[in-house]
Amino acid sequence: MTAPLAPPPSRTRPRVVIVGGGFGGLSAALSLKRAPVRITLVDRTNHHVFQPLLYQVAIAMLSPGEVAAPIRQILARQENAEVMMAEVAGLDLDTRRLRLADSPIPLDYDFLVLATGAAPSYFGHDEFEGWAPSLKSIADATAVRARILAAFENAERTRDPAQRGRLLTFVLVGAGPTGVEMAGAIAELRRFTLPHEFRHIDPRTARVLLLDAGSRVLPSFSEVLSRKVHDRLQRMGVEVRVGARVERVDQEGVIVNGEPIASSTVIWTAGVKPSPVAQWLGAPTDAAGRVRVERDLTVPRHHEVFVIGDAAALVQDGRPLPGVAQVAIQTGRHAARVIAARVAGRPAPGPFRYRDLGNLAVIGRNYAILESGRVRLAGFVAWIIWAAIHINNLTLFSDRLLVLVQWAWTYLTRQHGARLIVRPAGGAGPPTAPPT
Amino acid sequence: MTAPLAPPPSRTRPRVVIVGGGFGGLSAALSLKRAPVRITLVDRTNHHVFQPLLYQVAIAMLSPGEVAAPIRQILARQENAEVMMAEVAGLDLDTRRLRLADSPIPLDYDFLVLATGAAPSYFGHDEFEGWAPSLKSIADATAVRARILAAFENAERTRDPAQRGRLLTFVLVGAGPTGVEMAGAIAELRRFTLPHEFRHIDPRTARVLLLDAGSRVLPSFSEVLSRKVHDRLQRMGVEVRVGARVERVDQEGVIVNGEPIASSTVIWTAGVKPSPVAQWLGAPTDAAGRVRVERDLTVPRHHEVFVIGDAAALVQDGRPLPGVAQVAIQTGRHAARVIAARVAGRPAPGPFRYRDLGNLAVIGRNYAILESGRVRLAGFVAWIIWAAIHINNLTLFSDRLLVLVQWAWTYLTRQHGARLIVRPAGGAGPPTAPPT
Repeated sequence: MTAPLAPPPSRTRPRVVIVGGGFGGLSAALSLKRAPVRITLVDRTNHHVFQPLLYQVAIAMLSPGEVAAPIRQILARQENAEVMMAEVAGLDLDTRRLRLADSPIPLDYDFLVLATGAAPSYFGHDEFEGWAPSLKSIADATAVRARILAAFENAERTRDPAQRGRLLTFVLVGAGPTGVEMAGAIAELRRFTLPHEFRHIDPRTARVLLLDAGSRVLPSFSEVLSRKVHDRLQRMGVEVRVGARVERVDQEGVIVNGEPIASSTVIWTAGVKPSPVAQWLGAPTDAAGRVRVERDLTVPRHHEVFVIGDAAALVQDGRPLPGVAQVAIQTGRHAARVIAARVAGRPAPGPFRYRDLGNLAVIGRNYAILESGRVRLAGFVAWIIWAAIHINNLTLFSDRLLVLVQWAWTYLTRQHGARLIVRPAGGAGPPTAPPT
Repeated sequence: MTAPLAPPPSRTRPRVVIVGGGFGGLSAALSLKRAPVRITLVDRTNHHVFQPLLYQVAIAMLSPGEVAAPIRQILARQENAEVMMAEVAGLDLDTRRLRLADSPIPLDYDFLVLATGAAPSYFGHDEFEGWAPSLKSIADATAVRARILAAFENAERTRDPAQRGRLLTFVLVGAGPTGVEMAGAIAELRRFTLPHEFRHIDPRTARVLLLDAGSRVLPSFSEVLSRKVHDRLQRMGVEVRVGARVERVDQEGVIVNGEPIASSTVIWTAGVKPSPVAQWLGAPTDAAGRVRVERDLTVPRHHEVFVIGDAAALVQDGRPLPGVAQVAIQTGRHAARVIAARVAGRPAPGPFRYRDLGNLAVIGRNYAILESGRVRLAGFVAWIIWAAIHINNLTLFSDRLLVLVQWAWTYLTRQHGARLIVRPAGGAGPPTAPPT
């Protein structure tokens, strides 16, 4: 029972095992389309998530099926690839075998690409997690959606003003793109979508707080744009607080710089930490726990093992690369190129170099910012560009048209189409543990 | 803390409390639109489910948001109505108060409409439920979806032929409309949608069994149509077995007429039982536990309490009325008419009389049956009528257009757009308890 899994079509082709079906892993698999290899992509879920739009599921604008697609479907026509839904249990570098949970059969590899991404980081305060869910998976997003909607439902029922205030206070911890986008979206939800539907509360009185320990919102953008976003959020009624250190999160809410803020809905949009790849490898990492890789993205002393995307520590021109989709996609593509060259006996391509295609963030309806080289744009035109790029990048999915229709509908009517509370709606307690 | 909830806009208007936001409860609320009453609709979820299309969520064709809409949104513009997401804990008929779970504040009523619907019935074998989920709520549908998809995923991974056979055997217990529709849909999923995506199994070899203890499928239709559906299903490769008594359901599968059938995915589409309204009322019921109501749909000795839809025992021309959406809608409308007349001091309308608008069922793509009076239709034309009626009846929802686009897409490409496994994918074990 320890032979490699299922007889391969050809014994002679090198086996490439890719762990993770996010942007990095998929990009590696798709880039190896014409290489004479056998690819196995392993993911613990059956779907790829289009992360940049995940917040729209949390805010009940899109359905899960509109921002996620079965990995199996994406790779259906790529004959040198197979997909396996399984959890990785461990790694034996010497025998080149991946162990899977719930399976006695290991996966043998000739090349291994680790694209396991990042998990939320609570900066040593893992006890916050039960009270402040984050947004990484579809299950997270639907749990956050249930929490936000249930807060309004419970506020409508209560007669205790203090309790009502706590239920109608939404706190976002972390003013990166996800925090900013969520803040803008909740501000619009309370203002445009919900007002006519309640009889005992006025959803417009709900507070939305965006907290960050740093000195400004969206630190990955230039100061000019950061300032514009700050102003825009304030005009939308979001209370933006920078230099705000969250000291505690519990059932009552948060404590920020010593001040308690009662809130039943705290969402963690702060930091991420890489998944346990470094442990599997026993490899050196940077301070954030990301694996230090060579310039060809392989692990020192194991040049058959690649670490890409958020799991890798990449420094370019003295600055660490950000944990964004573009880095994952480009590192995935590079790893594929190196593997293809080695299999073909060709000289390896040059060292990996990230090409920054620009940076986008959206703040509610009609407003986005864009930064690409010296181009800086804020407002409606940037929003049109944002929408076009995101619709276009959903190419992998079959339901691009659906998202367009849904967006157009939401845009015209301000009605959110996916306002379902499917999980137990105990707004006061901790959310159910995410099932992924 | 026991005063009635929140000061009403006018103390003089009678209070109508409706329990349940299904077809019956919503129809009652909407029909009271112009009556001088204050309506409170209580439901434990925040959404109305369009039950006739729920099976399409289970089969990964539609997303939950496409067959469900927030009750609050449906009633947003009806000023005499409010919505409360809460679970009913009990009823005090003498003081006319409804007790809610998690709330010390009771709901006072002048009229009470109980529209709590039906729950699946395992005919005294509640231990089957863990192994054979049913299809009543959105949570059920996504759980069934996860189970079906995970079965194919796990079959792809296993190397044990017996285990693979068990994983690729789908059993539907009960050949009513839901069972027939699910059987047709799974048969098409395995045949058209999945074949190119797996490398170690051929999804087309999956078995689909439709079992029923009765003598024919779809007993609510005429024998001619029932026969046609039976033949159609067999041509699609569904193994239809009538006179099949399910004696046991467990981890291994089912035992039918003494014969064990190994299956990891058993779906219960057999019977329903009414929710615990009879207990609350202490009222007499029929053999199925449905409350016997007067001809005006009220409870004996409590003419301010109505029971409608699946929770009521209704007999017309010597035959019990079926548990279908039309009965729920028409009883809801009738209860509203009686209430409006009494409030206005007008004479009550005549006794309730059900008007049968016809019966429809769909079997896969392109094929449906229709029976209305003497009209009997089977085939593509009936399917077009089925699609038109269902699209039209989604009027309450904002996303009719989305469903059209999704259907058109699925129809043209045979790709299912919502193939996500969001719950833990342990195909072998019992499903997590549904979170509603």
